[in-house]
Formats: sequence, C-alpha cells, structure tokens
Amino acid sequence: MNLKDIDIVSIRDLDRSQIDHILDLAEKMIPFATGERMTRCLEGKVLANLFFEPSTRTKLSFESAAARLGIRVLEVSSATTTSMSKGETLSDTIRTVESYSDIIVLRHPHEGSSRLAAHFSSKPVINAGDGAGQHPTQTLLDLFTIRSEKGGIEGMKVVMVGDLKYGRTAHSLAVALSMFGAELTFVAPETLQMPTDTVDQVSEVGHAPRLTSDLESVISEADVLYVTRIQRERFPDPEEYNKVAGTYRIDKTLLREARKDLIVLHPLPRVDEIAPEVDYTDHAKYFRQAFNGVPMRMAILMALLGGELD
Amino acid sequence: MNLKDIDIVSIRDLDRSQIDHILDLAEKMIPFATGERMTRCLEGKVLANLFFEPSTRTKLSFESAAARLGIRVLEVSSATTTSMSKGETLSDTIRTVESYSDIIVLRHPHEGSSRLAAHFSSKPVINAGDGAGQHPTQTLLDLFTIRSEKGGIEGMKVVMVGDLKYGRTAHSLAVALSMFGAELTFVAPETLQMPTDTVDQVSEVGHAPRLTSDLESVISEADVLYVTRIQRERFPDPEEYNKVAGTYRIDKTLLREARKDLIVLHPLPRVDEIAPEVDYTDHAKYFRQAFNGVPMRMAILMALLGGELD
Amino acid sequence: MNLKDIDIVSIRDLDRSQIDHILDLAEKMIPFATGERMTRCLEGKVLANLFFEPSTRTKLSFESAAARLGIRVLEVSSATTTSMSKGETLSDTIRTVESYSDIIVLRHPHEGSSRLAAHFSSKPVINAGDGAGQHPTQTLLDLFTIRSEKGGIEGMKVVMVGDLKYGRTAHSLAVALSMFGAELTFVAPETLQMPTDTVDQVSEVGHAPRLTSDLESVISEADVLYVTRIQRERFPDPEEYNKVAGTYRIDKTLLREARKDLIVLHPLPRVDEIAPEVDYTDHAKYFRQAFNGVPMRMAILMALLGGELD
Repeated sequence: MNLKDIDIVSIRDLDRSQIDHILDLAEKMIPFATGERMTRCLEGKVLANLFFEPSTRTKLSFESAAARLGIRVLEVSSATTTSMSKGETLSDTIRTVESYSDIIVLRHPHEGSSRLAAHFSSKPVINAGDGAGQHPTQTLLDLFTIRSEKGGIEGMKVVMVGDLKYGRTAHSLAVALSMFGAELTFVAPETLQMPTDTVDQVSEVGHAPRLTSDLESVISEADVLYVTRIQRERFPDPEEYNKVAGTYRIDKTLLREARKDLIVLHPLPRVDEIAPEVDYTDHAKYFRQAFNGVPMRMAILMALLGGELD
Repeated sequence: MNLKDIDIVSIRDLDRSQIDHILDLAEKMIPFATGERMTRCLEGKVLANLFFEPSTRTKLSFESAAARLGIRVLEVSSATTTSMSKGETLSDTIRTVESYSDIIVLRHPHEGSSRLAAHFSSKPVINAGDGAGQHPTQTLLDLFTIRSEKGGIEGMKVVMVGDLKYGRTAHSLAVALSMFGAELTFVAPETLQMPTDTVDQVSEVGHAPRLTSDLESVISEADVLYVTRIQRERFPDPEEYNKVAGTYRIDKTLLREARKDLIVLHPLPRVDEIAPEVDYTDHAKYFRQAFNGVPMRMAILMALLGGELD
Repeated sequence: MNLKDIDIVSIRDLDRSQIDHILDLAEKMIPFATGERMTRCLEGKVLANLFFEPSTRTKLSFESAAARLGIRVLEVSSATTTSMSKGETLSDTIRTVESYSDIIVLRHPHEGSSRLAAHFSSKPVINAGDGAGQHPTQTLLDLFTIRSEKGGIEGMKVVMVGDLKYGRTAHSLAVALSMFGAELTFVAPETLQMPTDTVDQVSEVGHAPRLTSDLESVISEADVLYVTRIQRERFPDPEEYNKVAGTYRIDKTLLREARKDLIVLHPLPRVDEIAPEVDYTDHAKYFRQAFNGVPMRMAILMALLGGELD
C-alpha cells in the first residue's frame, strides 16, 4: 500500500484498509520507539513542526518520532509564529515553510486551516489539531492503543465519558471506533452529550450507540473506558461544575464494579478526572497511550515519506 | 578558494570572486536543499543560532540548511536570550556560546553587534541582521536568485520599489547589484527614496542609478522588479500611507505593461505590496527566492566550516 | 565502573570513586567537545531537556554535549511547560516525557522536584538545578576545571567569595572540594556567609574552613579564587549593596597580590564581580570553565546511557 505524499487532514481521508496498514506499521515501530532498535531510514529528511497554539504532547511525540527515524525537526512554535504571521496569510507561511522541509505538521486554532495548508503545500501536511476540527493522529493512536491492549476493536464495548460535546477528539474517535465494529456508550451530562450529527454518523457506519448520563450503570460491562476532561469554563455556575466533575471522577471505588480487564484511557493532561490511586491498577493504560503517540507518529511519517526499514 | 573560518558581517567582507564562489557553491547545493540528494559531510558540527530578535525566515532557513548538511543547531531564541543577557554583556554571551559550538549565526537589534561578536569569537560569525546595519546572507540569496532565474546579473535592468530609505537590505543589495553590472532604478516616494550615500556608492562601483517615484513609467523595461514593504509606521498621516501603499501595489493590471520574462522578487513577509493574483503568474519568483535561502545558507556553511561534498 | 541508568539528583548520590570516574571520562571527552574528533556512539538516543525555569548555560551545554554524541534533544522549555503543567502534576508530566525519551534533564524552581521526578521516571533523571537545592553537574564541572587547571584538588587552597549564603552551588561545591582534600576559605559579608551546617559538613569530610570578610588578607595564598554573584535584591539598602559589591570586585589591582598561577573561576553570568580587564590575564579561567560544561555533560551522558567510544 502506498501512502506516500498524501495529506492527513481528517481521519476520513483514510479508508479502513489504509488505517489498518498504519496500525500494522505502528506495531512494527514499537521497538524503534522505545530505543531498543535503531534505524536511520529517514535520515536527511526535514519535518516542520508548525504550532500556532501550544500542544506539548502532540509536538513532543512528533519530535520524538522524528528523532527515532533520523528526521530533523524545524520547530515553528507559537511564540515564533505570532511574529511570523504578523500580517502574513497562512498560505504565504505554508509556501515558505514547505520550501524548507519535506513534511509539515500543523496545529492551528482555526477549523479548516489544515485543509487550506494542504491545498497550498506541495509537501504532505499532517493535521495536528485545527480548533474544533479534526485531530486524526490522536484518533489513530487511540485506535492503536485499544487494538494492541485488547487484541482488536471489533465487538469491544467502549464507554466514552466526559465532555463529549466540545471535546475535539471525541467525535472523530467515536466514528472511527464504530467503523471498526466497536459498541459505543456515551456518558455525559445532558448539556455535554455527543452532538446529534455525530450520533447519526456513528449509527450509519456501525452499531447504534447508547446515550446516558449514568456512568455507574454502564461501567460493569465496559471493555474500554475512554475519559475526557470536562472544562470548568463550560459551566456558568461553579457548583454545577463541581457536581458534574465529581460524578464522573474515576476512582478505585467505581472500578470495583468493572471487569478485571477493563482498560482506562485518557488523552491527557488529566486534572481531576482520574484519581491518582487508579495509576497503580492494571486498568490504567493512559501513560501507555501517551507512549503510543510515538510509534503511531513514526508509522505516519514512514508512510507519508516513503521510508523503508533497512 | 578558501573561506574557512572567515566572518561574514557585511557583504563588503567578500570580494567579487569570493561572492562568485559562494554563488557557484549554492547552485551545487540545490539538489541537497530539496532533499533529492543527501550528504552528511558536516555531521558532528554544531551551529549556534543566536536570535536576539525574531526573524522566522532567516532562522528557519539556517536551521534547514544545517539539517540538510548534518549540522546540529543550538537555538538561542529571543525568549532565552532575554534571560541570558540579563545584565550580561554581549561579549560574555558570545564567548560562552562559542565554546558550545563551531559557528555562530547572530541576529541582534543593534547595528555593529555582529562586528563586536566577530571580534570576541574565535569561531566564525555570520551576521543575520543587525538593526539598521547589514544582512549579507539576504543579499547573497537575492543575487543568487537573480543569477539563476535570469542567467546572470550583468546588464540586468533591476527596478527596486518600496521603502528604500529604511529598508535594511535595500542598500547593500543595491551596491552589490551595481558591482555585478546591473542597471538600477529606484522607485519610491520622495520621503522614502534611497539615501544619497548609497546612491553615490552605487554610481561608484557601477552604472549611475535612475531615481523616480513613478513605477508605471519604468515597469515596461524591467528584467527584475524587487519589491519591499512600506511600513505603516513611517507615515504620521494614515491617508498619506494609503495613497503611497496603493501606488506601489503590484497586480496583474500593472504587470500587463511588463516584459514577459520579468521576475518579481520580495524578501517576504509581504502584506499588501503584491496582490495574491500575481502568485499564479510566471513573474512570481518570491517563493522560489525564499527557498533559495536554503542552498545559499548551505553554501555559506560549507565554505566557512570547510565542508567537502563526499 | 557501571553508572548506567542511575539518577544524579545530588552530588551525594555519587561516591568519591564514581566522581573520579566521571572526571576521568570528561577528560577523554575534550577532543570530542571541541569538535576535533567525532563520535556517533549514542546516535538514536533521545534526551528530554525539561526546563521549568530558564537557565541558558546549563540548557545549551547539555544540548551541545548531546549534539557532539549524536543524541537528539527534545526541548521542553519554560514557555511550553507553563502550558504543559496547566493543572498537570509534575509526576504526570514526567511519566509522559519519559515515554518520549531515554534520559531526562530537569530544571525546576522547587527544591525536591528532581528527587520526585527520579522516583516516577524509569529513565535516568539528571538534576539541572532545583531551586535552593542541588545542581550536581555544575559541581562536577567546577571540580573538573580545578583538577584540569591545577593538576589536582588535594591540598589546593580555594577561596570562595561572594554570596555564600543563598548561592545555590556554593554549598555543594564546598562540601565536594573538602571531600577531595582542598583547604577552603569562605569570604563574605557576615550576612551572606556560608551557613553553619555547610561549614560543619565541610569540616567533617575534610579540613576545617576559614571564614572571613576580608578578601585582601587571603588572596595572596590562594590557588583558586571562586567568585559568585551577590544579588542586589538581597540588600534592602542599595548603599549597603554598593559597598559590599565594591569590596569583592575582582580587578587587576587586587590580583597584584595573588600568586602567578592563581586561577579565577565564576559560574557565569557575571555582572560586576570581575572587571573585564581580568579577562586578558592568565588568571581568568571562567570561559574555560563554561566550555568544560560540555565535556563534563558528555561524560555524564556517556556514563548514564552506557555509551562506549568506538
């Protein structure tokens, strides 16, 4: 399968067989991501990490992935880009940066900016989050984590909990999981439930999801619990926030009801959503998930730059 | 020709044969700059990118040039240097940084700072812009772009338009172009015309330049149109600015009068000086010019660090 | 001797033979640190430079050391970490960053943070300064500088002058020097003298130190003069500061009383503590000391990552 020079702006830019290919490739990257094995197969290549807003994990995991493959990174961070974009259009910035590099990773606060960048750039563009839009490499690493921890995605009972309305990655993850045959349950307070159009998409590509606000009633059947952060700013009334945040806090008491092999995921950073005591249980896979950002981004860079393991 | 360990503080540090040598070397660097070919000939070397004020293009193109040659970059950006220079003299900073690196690229807001740095550093110093002073690598890449796009500089009719008074690079570019036999026309409102001493220097080393404020009257003969930005801040009266900015805006209507093989250059970033519609014409070479920053800076690093293509 | 995978949080984490081993290794690193010789023995490894507060010299010398060994650096600077740590605990940050890298260098404003990081990280942690706590790599490079400039530390008469009370590195340096048999004199105004517990420790491990506020009376016997900065902020009364700062300013007049082979050290940056005229004397070794940060940090990285010179 040849994915050389494609853009990854949305997870929908990839069909199922292409996603499978990338997941397989990520699996192969693990010993290189841990530093156990070494490759220089993309040495001499240059990646531009263009971050118009901070996103430490995404930025660092791309940098680490690049380093493990011998790729050099040009960092264009928010501080710099502020000055860069002083009156300059994004299309001019992109046309300049593409002439310095072989591939562009773009994080930008405005939805659609990655699509625009891909239009103007002759080099591949990877969307690393564009506002309320897509964050496809996060979706891919989440799929990868579930597949590698549970042996597959098909038939898995995945409970997503937290802010499902505004949470950027929740929407595309839900659709992707459904496409792979997962059975979804969306747990959120009514004001933060999954938007109707996403619920409809999920049903179209796979099983109809279940919606509820009661986490305890669904925890016992779950194979995967995907926790997202509820932001205080969403609530005009702080008491209302405290009530909701408290309800969805994952701790050992709640997990007593869970299956022994339930895995708990979280895109991080977490604040209070998961109690530290959970870290020491076998359920906790969120740091492994963070690590998986490296082999997944290595796989994507390999695919788009046409690298071959030596 | 041996340029190893020299400083490049001003374009006048180089004689004509040295400039020719660097231009030839930049030509050879192109396939390496695009990533088509790969070299590790300067691997293990360390470049300190010391930016006391932001300058994204210059910084990134040096980083890209370094990456393509296998050189590692220590970034000392404005944020860091603020803290570094807290009470520390520039000469102390330079003597510390030179002990961590093999070559120093310095951008500093004060004229003369690069000369001072070169005095204190035992490692070569490249001036990447020192306030109202010099920016010799920009001049070199401009010469290179004209030479490679037009086949030579001798006898070329170059029209420079915009802020020729305060524009940092316009002065040294004009002198260098004249030295190479170009015939210059300076187009600017009276208040922003080329300073008399630069006009005198241009005449001394080559043809006497023509001065005018009327762009339309000279566009039809031009081989090269070099556009620079007019900064709003120069005009106490905003209406005055709008009038001037509008007069010198390059668009397709203006270019109807131009030769078919006219090339339009701009050091970027542009704001309104060139209409986006021009991007799609064969005249537009400013993004190519931005790219040329990479092979030119590779050539300079090769020359100063004594690299040999393997 | 095997130091692979140990943490270096405090100089006390190392016994005397381990310190000797690192000093020997640093000696061997010098030709690689200057760029005279090249090695790729740690290529493919990734170092996370995690700086929660700025410290240009420490950061850059680790970067330079890494570059000379072929190690890639992930920079997590204060700007980024501010956003990273938005509500995130240090332990979460560390567990994420360790999954992207092979070794962590941590600078943090809070005492004890490096010990905490070492507890949570499965990868080695190097303390690059934690508030009023330790800065062991600075201590090591100071020992290294004295040893290589004077041929040994045993029996050396070392005069430490300046702010010995609050100066972070003065305490652990004093103890380490005493352990190696140096004879110490502490010169400071009474309000900034070495704390009693450090004086006690120094006496325990070696010779009892001499305390005085009169620099002139002790300068003539010194082999090493270690100068630290007195911060204006320590003095409520500016006149009091000026008097003290003036008293301890090192200039050629003072050095007339010194031995010919006295060496003057300073961790840099200096402000007024050492007159620029001293730079041109043979006493001045503070820029050499800054350079020594590179071979010393190379030695530490070699030891902790298990590198072998090819």
